[in-house]
Amino acid sequence: MQLLFVERPLMPAAQLVLTGAAYQHVICVLRLEIGAALELVGSDQVGFAATITAIDPANSSFSVQLAAVALPNTELPVQATIICGLPKGEKTKLIVQKATELGVARIIFCPMQRSIMRWRPEQVTKKVAHLQQIAASAAEQSHRRLIPQVEYWPTLAPLPSVGLNLVAYEEVVKNGQQDLALAQAFQTLRQQLLALPHEAAVPPTDRPAVRMIFGPEGGLAPVEVADLTARGVQSVGLGPRILRTETAPLYFLSSLSYAIEVETLPR
Amino acid sequence: MQLLFVERPLMPAAQLVLTGAAYQHVICVLRLEIGAALELVGSDQVGFAATITAIDPANSSFSVQLAAVALPNTELPVQATIICGLPKGEKTKLIVQKATELGVARIIFCPMQRSIMRWRPEQVTKKVAHLQQIAASAAEQSHRRLIPQVEYWPTLAPLPSVGLNLVAYEEVVKNGQQDLALAQAFQTLRQQLLALPHEAAVPPTDRPAVRMIFGPEGGLAPVEVADLTARGVQSVGLGPRILRTETAPLYFLSSLSYAIEVETLPR
Repeated sequence: MQLLFVERPLMPAAQLVLTGAAYQHVICVLRLEIGAALELVGSDQVGFAATITAIDPANSSFSVQLAAVALPNTELPVQATIICGLPKGEKTKLIVQKATELGVARIIFCPMQRSIMRWRPEQVTKKVAHLQQIAASAAEQSHRRLIPQVEYWPTLAPLPSVGLNLVAYEEVVKNGQQDLALAQAFQTLRQQLLALPHEAAVPPTDRPAVRMIFGPEGGLAPVEVADLTARGVQSVGLGPRILRTETAPLYFLSSLSYAIEVETLPR
Repeated sequence: MQLLFVERPLMPAAQLVLTGAAYQHVICVLRLEIGAALELVGSDQVGFAATITAIDPANSSFSVQLAAVALPNTELPVQATIICGLPKGEKTKLIVQKATELGVARIIFCPMQRSIMRWRPEQVTKKVAHLQQIAASAAEQSHRRLIPQVEYWPTLAPLPSVGLNLVAYEEVVKNGQQDLALAQAFQTLRQQLLALPHEAAVPPTDRPAVRMIFGPEGGLAPVEVADLTARGVQSVGLGPRILRTETAPLYFLSSLSYAIEVETLPR
């Protein structure tokens, strides 16, 4: 079922008239007809099943009837940010698409010491806009409730001190010792979630935050890791194998989802 | 550090002479020189750090000295197989590369009811060989101890009854109920691992097995799910978002690694 983000909050059982880009996309491109089912997500990040009840080509508009009950939430209960050392070529697109499917809230690309690729200042706006489009498509496809924000940072800015700041560092992997830092970080997030009054009552921006930094191809330089560690960022390993720069964020987000959305078995 | 698979078991502190494809790759392509460090993995799936001690271009051979102690194991302690509904275009390559990094043992592509792509019988050998090459490169890059096996099945053959057989089914996701089946499957694997005499003593083929089936674009048809369920295959959800056909196996393998290689904290 096609999902459509609309820029207003949605009320149960409401009738809406949609125009502009929504008309263009749903009626002209997808060619949906009266009676077709849609999923609408409002600016308050609540989704509803909807049915097309009328189409008015003269005014480039169409009407929908929302269901009486909201659809289940699909957002990660924490705000997850990935900060990726700028990789080569098409990898930015792969990271944005897959991280969006896996529930990321914010994706930041930042040139790091071993980044081969650099973006010229005049390229940044266009490249970020293109990646933002990819995030929007992937958010629709995966039935998200928000579109992740894509950003470019010319240097690694200071990170907010509220929330968990982590860095993926493969030297932790190479020495062959088991590393519990990732499991400990997820355990901290679980405890923060349990301490919230009630998940639905917490605005998304007030949910527990986790940020994870990933090196580009070739990894982070030891001096970068030392600098991050000095700033209080925790080094974590992501299992015993060496992951490519575009695979590591997907491992992180998948295991985050598993740890806080799927695994609730007593041990 | 470059990893090289060799087709013989390796002894600690041994000196080896390598020829053929190994010479071609390490000396002619990578242009490594005397004193350069390598990682060698033997046919017994044990890896050693090694140093190039001599190069003999006249005989197209080079010599290496192995370290006295083996490197840490990097293999998943279970045998994980993914069975993927044949997807479109380049997605087979992405799945093979990423699943290899994430520790898969066996990758099977199989046309399913909603597969748009079909391979003609005369294409199969060439396509599988190409994907096997991608698996070999990714296994080297991610410092695996074995190269996953890539296969094509024209139809979904009966699955072995030993081990866990799972199918990813997004209807489980869409109804919004929390689904514990994945966590329960991983808990079963953990218990099987705890029951083994000692991990290092267990040949890879005797390790606990888990197989997971994924639909192509558009998902599995309900009749396919019903047939699999009738054959005793367990339906599992992979978190609350809809994942693309190539993303679902990566979620599965990442969370498997997290659950049995990383997370050992008491809860």
